Amino acid sequence: MSSIWGNKLKISIFGESHGEGIGVTIDGFPSGYDVDLDFINIQMNRRRPGKSKLSTARSEKDKLNILSGIFKGKTTGSPICCIIYNEDKKSNDYDKIKNLPRPGHSDYTASVKYSGYNDYRGGGHFSGRLTAPLVFAGALCMSMLQKNYSIFVASHIQKIHGIEDEKPKLSHINKEYLEKLSSMDFPVLSIEQGEIMQNEILCAKDKLDSVGGIVETFVINMPVGIGEPLFDSIESRLSHMLFSIPAVKGLEFGDGFNFADMYGSEANDEYYITNDGDIRTYTNNNGGILGGLTNGMPITFKICIKPTPSIAKEQNTVNLENKVNDKINIEGRHDPCIVQRAIPVIECATALVLLDFLLKE
Amino acid sequence: MSSIWGNKLKISIFGESHGEGIGVTIDGFPSGYDVDLDFINIQMNRRRPGKSKLSTARSEKDKLNILSGIFKGKTTGSPICCIIYNEDKKSNDYDKIKNLPRPGHSDYTASVKYSGYNDYRGGGHFSGRLTAPLVFAGALCMSMLQKNYSIFVASHIQKIHGIEDEKPKLSHINKEYLEKLSSMDFPVLSIEQGEIMQNEILCAKDKLDSVGGIVETFVINMPVGIGEPLFDSIESRLSHMLFSIPAVKGLEFGDGFNFADMYGSEANDEYYITNDGDIRTYTNNNGGILGGLTNGMPITFKICIKPTPSIAKEQNTVNLENKVNDKINIEGRHDPCIVQRAIPVIECATALVLLDFLLKE
Amino acid sequence: MSSIWGNKLKISIFGESHGEGIGVTIDGFPSGYDVDLDFINIQMNRRRPGKSKLSTARSEKDKLNILSGIFKGKTTGSPICCIIYNEDKKSNDYDKIKNLPRPGHSDYTASVKYSGYNDYRGGGHFSGRLTAPLVFAGALCMSMLQKNYSIFVASHIQKIHGIEDEKPKLSHINKEYLEKLSSMDFPVLSIEQGEIMQNEILCAKDKLDSVGGIVETFVINMPVGIGEPLFDSIESRLSHMLFSIPAVKGLEFGDGFNFADMYGSEANDEYYITNDGDIRTYTNNNGGILGGLTNGMPITFKICIKPTPSIAKEQNTVNLENKVNDKINIEGRHDPCIVQRAIPVIECATALVLLDFLLKE
Amino acid sequence: MSSIWGNKLKISIFGESHGEGIGVTIDGFPSGYDVDLDFINIQMNRRRPGKSKLSTARSEKDKLNILSGIFKGKTTGSPICCIIYNEDKKSNDYDKIKNLPRPGHSDYTASVKYSGYNDYRGGGHFSGRLTAPLVFAGALCMSMLQKNYSIFVASHIQKIHGIEDEKPKLSHINKEYLEKLSSMDFPVLSIEQGEIMQNEILCAKDKLDSVGGIVETFVINMPVGIGEPLFDSIESRLSHMLFSIPAVKGLEFGDGFNFADMYGSEANDEYYITNDGDIRTYTNNNGGILGGLTNGMPITFKICIKPTPSIAKEQNTVNLENKVNDKINIEGRHDPCIVQRAIPVIECATALVLLDFLLKE
Repeated sequence: MSSIWGNKLKISIFGESHGEGIGVTIDGFPSGYDVDLDFINIQMNRRRPGKSKLSTARSEKDKLNILSGIFKGKTTGSPICCIIYNEDKKSNDYDKIKNLPRPGHSDYTASVKYSGYNDYRGGGHFSGRLTAPLVFAGALCMSMLQKNYSIFVASHIQKIHGIEDEKPKLSHINKEYLEKLSSMDFPVLSIEQGEIMQNEILCAKDKLDSVGGIVETFVINMPVGIGEPLFDSIESRLSHMLFSIPAVKGLEFGDGFNFADMYGSEANDEYYITNDGDIRTYTNNNGGILGGLTNGMPITFKICIKPTPSIAKEQNTVNLENKVNDKINIEGRHDPCIVQRAIPVIECATALVLLDFLLKE
Repeated sequence: MSSIWGNKLKISIFGESHGEGIGVTIDGFPSGYDVDLDFINIQMNRRRPGKSKLSTARSEKDKLNILSGIFKGKTTGSPICCIIYNEDKKSNDYDKIKNLPRPGHSDYTASVKYSGYNDYRGGGHFSGRLTAPLVFAGALCMSMLQKNYSIFVASHIQKIHGIEDEKPKLSHINKEYLEKLSSMDFPVLSIEQGEIMQNEILCAKDKLDSVGGIVETFVINMPVGIGEPLFDSIESRLSHMLFSIPAVKGLEFGDGFNFADMYGSEANDEYYITNDGDIRTYTNNNGGILGGLTNGMPITFKICIKPTPSIAKEQNTVNLENKVNDKINIEGRHDPCIVQRAIPVIECATALVLLDFLLKE
Repeated sequence: MSSIWGNKLKISIFGESHGEGIGVTIDGFPSGYDVDLDFINIQMNRRRPGKSKLSTARSEKDKLNILSGIFKGKTTGSPICCIIYNEDKKSNDYDKIKNLPRPGHSDYTASVKYSGYNDYRGGGHFSGRLTAPLVFAGALCMSMLQKNYSIFVASHIQKIHGIEDEKPKLSHINKEYLEKLSSMDFPVLSIEQGEIMQNEILCAKDKLDSVGGIVETFVINMPVGIGEPLFDSIESRLSHMLFSIPAVKGLEFGDGFNFADMYGSEANDEYYITNDGDIRTYTNNNGGILGGLTNGMPITFKICIKPTPSIAKEQNTVNLENKVNDKINIEGRHDPCIVQRAIPVIECATALVLLDFLLKE
Repeated sequence: MSSIWGNKLKISIFGESHGEGIGVTIDGFPSGYDVDLDFINIQMNRRRPGKSKLSTARSEKDKLNILSGIFKGKTTGSPICCIIYNEDKKSNDYDKIKNLPRPGHSDYTASVKYSGYNDYRGGGHFSGRLTAPLVFAGALCMSMLQKNYSIFVASHIQKIHGIEDEKPKLSHINKEYLEKLSSMDFPVLSIEQGEIMQNEILCAKDKLDSVGGIVETFVINMPVGIGEPLFDSIESRLSHMLFSIPAVKGLEFGDGFNFADMYGSEANDEYYITNDGDIRTYTNNNGGILGGLTNGMPITFKICIKPTPSIAKEQNTVNLENKVNDKINIEGRHDPCIVQRAIPVIECATALVLLDFLLKE
């Protein structure tokens, strides 16, 4: 079940970082939808490696090869299969270290799980590269959320290696604000803080090291009452998806861990009637979700992305073959920080989950 | 799908807080297991309301009525159905406020989702009371984890309303330590801090208010290589389950949000060979999970529980019937803090997920 | 997964023939539906044992105890749990033969699967008695199909032990015809043939033997285009459900096995436009399903029910304990023919599948 | 959900008859399995069109392009994706008749379901061509069933257009017998009857018509006690899969519809102990399945395949655009009989289901 996800909308992801290619099949997408490939390619491009000094030098065009499910530019209702071939592979880098599990990676755990038969090159099926097909699938959903539901998803980088962005105000979270964030390569509220963050990344790179950070995501215009109690709460299903993204180690909705410092009377979002007769809350501590269901306020959550585990610095490891302590120097091309590239993945993955909730067959 | 969860082991939860009863059916539990009802009742009792001044006065014995799946004391391999009747209901409390959604609760969102037909009394199916059958199902799994796999799950209260417990050391996380925590009514590492926390809860109660907190959970002796890549990672499936528990708003594995302040070289857990020839890591920042799979180190995670939304203080709300602003005074019996009662729920829910991963048909 | 079924609508069945009770939880049923318990009890009564000489003397009232999901007479949208206690148990009959598997039953296979820990009394969880909760769940669906969609399901007994009923004509399959069949205890088109069939059953009973037969079922007014290609075709999902009913050994849609004797030009149902501008076919050889989707014609299928395996005649068997050949004389109360009691089960199970296809969240 | 199937083993099928290509992703296949591509290609070749006068002239090589999941000749444990490009497309044939639904096909029903956006060329995703990736996935499973479990699956053509093959005897159903059937292009027990059947097919072809038939399949060496009660019985899950194969309209296990003519005392398979101390039944009327579980006897079932609906003869249809009666003459290349090509599909699909039951993670 590992690589298949969904309910009304199902996706099946396949491929390995240094194999022939990677891809995704989307089952259950409604027929007759006019596919906006430009929009999808913009999302793909946001995630794509090799664009700037902040990310890895591996250069992948991530060209989309759509095999099925789209006919005359529109979805047919049948499964949509899209393949992305791996082009810039340097697999030899990995043969040298195949018995030396890289700390912080899946090398050791996957080797045990698959009795050594897994494709170890670049993490194989565990590679962050597998988020490319996820972005394809999610971007298709995101374009439908925008067009058919006026739902928008966007994010800013809330922290990089201890350096924090400004805090957003509830009143700011609207369509214009979200569209602006979506258009930025390094989306932050404070341009100054953003520059300090970028310097911090380059500084880590110079030290042959890496840094992590926190992404804060906003979703606006979700209708009220979407979600399910218990096991299919919005939080349950979003968290399931978001923790599937490599390097995600923390997730909080609304005020999240800060709730541990608050009184109930501070934490509760009190209701009022707007001039238009709508029901809203004065605050949004609960991040738009109550009882697992949307309450009409923006959905907000924060995700912590750990520092890229691939670093050029020498590290302690063990040799899996002869079971002795050893050292590893990871050659090859690494991201000094993966946070900015993770943003479109988080947003597209979120779009997938939300459209799955919204679709009626 | 909302109230059914699982893979090899499936549970189906039913019931409403003030209806006839609540319960659970467990499908896929292996046959021939000698059911330890005492162990299960200990877990039920840890969650049960009405035991101390720290929790609600609603007094429920939570007597287990097992309808099927156990024959001559052993599991049959067929679905195990267990029912808990609601005994101490004061449903009239809720009829008065049925059009006044309680802030922080599911009242408003559920009313929209179900067009007003939901059982609104005490949150209905959204009530924290539904965690009682979850504890039954999970306690059965936890006893099997202990007996058949030597896997132990325990927790301490890491924070209550800003007051923090001691930090555990990696070297301390062993069976004795976990058993000690499991035996405590209010499990903390520092007895002094625990007393301050308890005073803080009573203090909030006096103010007609409530407080939240953070629970830190440990799992030891999971074999290496359990889990799946992508959508069935340990983190994905645990988070799905844990965010299904009412009032959970944040979750982090290992060092969680602290990763945003670390370098890769600090974050990575370096490997070494133990004297016994086992592969271990010097640190456990990743909380026992790499690439979504267990790495043999303790699984550790922290969960934030928001302050109980039911408070006696007057709050702003709206009248759903005539759509005007209104005030609400919630009468009835409330928990000034739900954190300590959430612990067995978190642990039993965790046991369910882990046993589901471990079971082979 | 064995006892949980469904997609948008999920049911979870539990219980054993001679345990405390049996029951079902229905998850995903829409809120606000006015539950017609009389209608449901009529279906329960059609399946109930102990009503006539044609069926077993075990007398079960099959009283419905609804624990959850219905509030003020209407569905709440939360799981509906219904329990039926076992009242007329004669479990001692089964202790004598616990090591002698009854031919044609699950006794031997279940004993191997569950290593002997299964509840062997009366087939335990494998008993035909487990169809009672299935009828409850399906009858609820059937009443919604009738009220909200004008869809009707009914059947006649097409054959009992070689004795055949009249063949229905396509033009006869309408609401009046179906309602008439539904009102009959022993539904047949030819009253004369029905009497011969009933005599045949009594005759088999006198011989301490049993007989089987064929049920033909009709569904009218399904909208066009319902179903899915490949693995969720109407035929796939109906067959999955129908073969879950104990004693079902054959299923054919439309002309079924007769297609093996036809030319394509005879088999194809040619289209025409009705006076109302609707698209219909002149014939209905395909039983209302093309490419796994409904085509607007009546869905028709035939099901073969094998003779009740419980017979009073002495039979050869083996002793599971000491592995020697042995003989068995099954005492107790048996159905000489289960076909007429299977009809409401088939119809209600069909209603479950069809409503699951039709529901939009 | 339509094109995704499975439990421990999941497959996701994609593609359209006249699109770029078709394919399948297999998730959950164990790692380290030495893939026997020759064996798989033999199965692909049995299904492949264009080999003889008995089938369509569409010539597809069905070359397998494996994108992922196999590394150094062995399975990695990650999803196996295989693509088959469509090469011999004559799509213009279909543009002419796009508003004239072919009788017996999904054209009309799919057009309604997908509001006309489906790829109508050659049935699109509903085409029998989609069974090619199913054969790939199933052949991989079948090779593992043979190597790791000594389980064999084979079939004979029991009937073509009224002409019947010999009846097999229970004592004949062994490995040698099954291997012989598997090696035959047109597998029958009586060579003479097989020749008459083949003439009958060619005769139908001359008449611009088509014929159907019945396939009988045998599975040997399944262990005892595999399967589940109720909704995951062997019959339920096999039937779900088998009715997903286009043109299948009937399915019976063991004696199937003949049970309607038998007494219980004839129908029941009585037990005895073999000289080796195994438990067997004298007869196998139940086709190796009791209570939904295997009983150690051969699994046997019969499937009816309707005559190919594509025939060159003129037929009545309607024009979907202007809603008038019309005629259709289907040009292009058709199979006068699909039965022999359906055999590897049935067997491979069966292997998929059985391996899914047998696999332990």
